[in-house]
Amino acid sequence: MQPIRLGLVGYGKIAQDQHVPAIQANPAFSLCAVATQGQPCPGVANFGSLAQMLSAGPALDAIAFCTPPQGRYGLVSEALAAGKHVLVEKPPCASLGEALALVDQATEAGVTGLFAWHSRFAPGVAPAKAWLAERTLKAVHVTWKESVRKWHPGQTWIWQAGGLGVFDPGINALSIVTDVLATPLFVENAQLQVPENCQSPIAATLRMRNAIGLPVTADLDFDHGHDELWRIELDAGDSVLRLDQGGAALSIDGHRQTLPAEAEYPAMYRHFQQLIASGTCDMDVQPLRLVADSFFAGERVLVEAFHE
Amino acid sequence: MQPIRLGLVGYGKIAQDQHVPAIQANPAFSLCAVATQGQPCPGVANFGSLAQMLSAGPALDAIAFCTPPQGRYGLVSEALAAGKHVLVEKPPCASLGEALALVDQATEAGVTGLFAWHSRFAPGVAPAKAWLAERTLKAVHVTWKESVRKWHPGQTWIWQAGGLGVFDPGINALSIVTDVLATPLFVENAQLQVPENCQSPIAATLRMRNAIGLPVTADLDFDHGHDELWRIELDAGDSVLRLDQGGAALSIDGHRQTLPAEAEYPAMYRHFQQLIASGTCDMDVQPLRLVADSFFAGERVLVEAFHE
Repeated sequence: MQPIRLGLVGYGKIAQDQHVPAIQANPAFSLCAVATQGQPCPGVANFGSLAQMLSAGPALDAIAFCTPPQGRYGLVSEALAAGKHVLVEKPPCASLGEALALVDQATEAGVTGLFAWHSRFAPGVAPAKAWLAERTLKAVHVTWKESVRKWHPGQTWIWQAGGLGVFDPGINALSIVTDVLATPLFVENAQLQVPENCQSPIAATLRMRNAIGLPVTADLDFDHGHDELWRIELDAGDSVLRLDQGGAALSIDGHRQTLPAEAEYPAMYRHFQQLIASGTCDMDVQPLRLVADSFFAGERVLVEAFHE
Repeated sequence: MQPIRLGLVGYGKIAQDQHVPAIQANPAFSLCAVATQGQPCPGVANFGSLAQMLSAGPALDAIAFCTPPQGRYGLVSEALAAGKHVLVEKPPCASLGEALALVDQATEAGVTGLFAWHSRFAPGVAPAKAWLAERTLKAVHVTWKESVRKWHPGQTWIWQAGGLGVFDPGINALSIVTDVLATPLFVENAQLQVPENCQSPIAATLRMRNAIGLPVTADLDFDHGHDELWRIELDAGDSVLRLDQGGAALSIDGHRQTLPAEAEYPAMYRHFQQLIASGTCDMDVQPLRLVADSFFAGERVLVEAFHE
């Protein structure tokens, strides 16, 4: 079988660290072209734009998008109009409207789209689903605390209008929880702590519930310098499953379970390959929708200014 | 043909002023029962809750919901689970997630759902669509300025988290614009002016664009005491159509056109009747999605405190 001929748009840190190694390690894909306005990707044809790559480049079956979410809608739409399968880094778009429009466009075009919620491919997620299949949950608690100063130095766009603030890491937790739970989650209330010199929250507390009444809370903190924590607790009453390290570690009733090593992006590209083979889409807007609903329904509290 | 046996949930001002007169003037409907915790509706069976109405009341085909959007999701879901057609006052729910879940539930149940964007039934909207069918727009401008002090005295919930603020009237404009335009609109940027003692904006400026690049601006003001204005201008370059008075007046290139008298709710109930007859749904989330995206992607500017 011929490999899937893949183009990559955007060759920044996430493309270099994660996408290219995952693609090149998977014989089902052949990385044929890169569109970038920065440094070129070695060993493949480089182009200054998606339009140039599509018109002057090698034949492509699929395109992966690693540019920032602002402006990404137009690019992905262009690729879909050209009949290409698309993989779109998280968060898929700058607004929910754009993301929903891409879902419709991919469906109408009959091509494969994947909104790349990479945390869903953490090694603990599939075992958590298997554990849950035999149980009924009583509650879910998310605790997601990390240091923006450590992980995002100088990235002021996180704090501007349209930036996700603490939801930049928090949306990873929401992507796992919504994958594990079968029914959609609703934001009942949210408290967003917004530094007085920023537009986006630096911390948030969410109270959510699904259609069958399951309470889900999330405690998100983005200025947490010590003991960083990426934890999801699934409480089934007689048993509690805990994901740690963003899904790379798993314990059941306090007993640590053995998991394969973290390999989110390789697993995600295998999933993309299977979607293309079966002619289906996986474009879940729910994590982004929960963020938009938190901004919409949430109460804002001004807190002290944030300075790096 | 037997009339559609209708139940009404919530018997407040909008139910008394609009729904009940529209239903009683339409022989296709028979108002059989009302669920209310306030004063009873004369001439029909009254119940203290939807659950009581469903279990102890007369047989019903359809239910109209006029309770506040907070808490409405659970009620509408209950009616859908009982196989009833539903009409849901605007805005349909307290969050976008709830609205999307109702769309899915109605579709799966195979019943009719109508999200009741009443402004779409203003007498100028259908003529505007007919005018537009032969033209290509260059721009759309919304100017929506009214006095919250006059229309919503004492309604503090408008300013709380989850309240719509200036989008309470503004969503009517958005519902007309999204009905007139064939392709979805995206929020490119938004400036929200939020009184320092409130959670919701008292004024907003939106810059939107659709998938084919049409610019749409909206200038919304909720503390505008003189010369109130509810205007949508459709600019086709060689011709400009203007809706005023929220769609009750229409002019083309400055010439006022003759329209039938405003009768939004009677027209909306005729639409509901046709949807039921044809077994289809009309549950457009787009106006609510544009509000959520404005809160999500918008920049907030604190302005002076609002006191009635």
